[in-house]
Amino acid sequence: MLNHNTYFDGNVQSVGFVRNSLKASVGVIAPGEYHFGTAAAERMTVVSGTLQAKLPEGDWQQYPAGTSFEVAANSGFDVRAVGGPAAYLCEYLCG
Amino acid sequence: MLNHNTYFDGNVQSVGFVRNSLKASVGVIAPGEYHFGTAAAERMTVVSGTLQAKLPEGDWQQYPAGTSFEVAANSGFDVRAVGGPAAYLCEYLCG
Repeated sequence: MLNHNTYFDGNVQSVGFVRNSLKASVGVIAPGEYHFGTAAAERMTVVSGTLQAKLPEGDWQQYPAGTSFEVAANSGFDVRAVGGPAAYLCEYLCG
Repeated sequence: MLNHNTYFDGNVQSVGFVRNSLKASVGVIAPGEYHFGTAAAERMTVVSGTLQAKLPEGDWQQYPAGTSFEVAANSGFDVRAVGGPAAYLCEYLCG
């Protein structure tokens, strides 16, 4: 029912779940910079720490805990954790 | 730097991290009821879904997303996810 995912040599790890047909995961991003492609659109909410993200055609923006950003389907984003690991909730949005 | 933990045959899974000497994890609890013992005191914050928790000498209480509860050190609590898996942030509190 739950699935563990690991990316970038274990520097990003998440646990995925489905509730009410909503696909989501919570995870942690270690310090560093990473690129994620998106198939479905998704909303990333920072639950602990601080992320910086660069969306397509945008500049780097800072997202402290409690804030979120959305990424279009068939797109991608660059992300980095600053000041230590940051935890997030990723929700996949229905098209 | 990040560590994956699995409990109760994979029905509870988390990713642990440390930031500014704060030890924490994000995880997911599948539907069901579980008991966790605590060594350090901890704060559990629900980040998606709904948890019910029973603290020592207390009754079952409901914690929707955005709410939290704290558990004393050298203690424990019963917890259950209702309506599907629930995601949480667990922060270990310094004594």
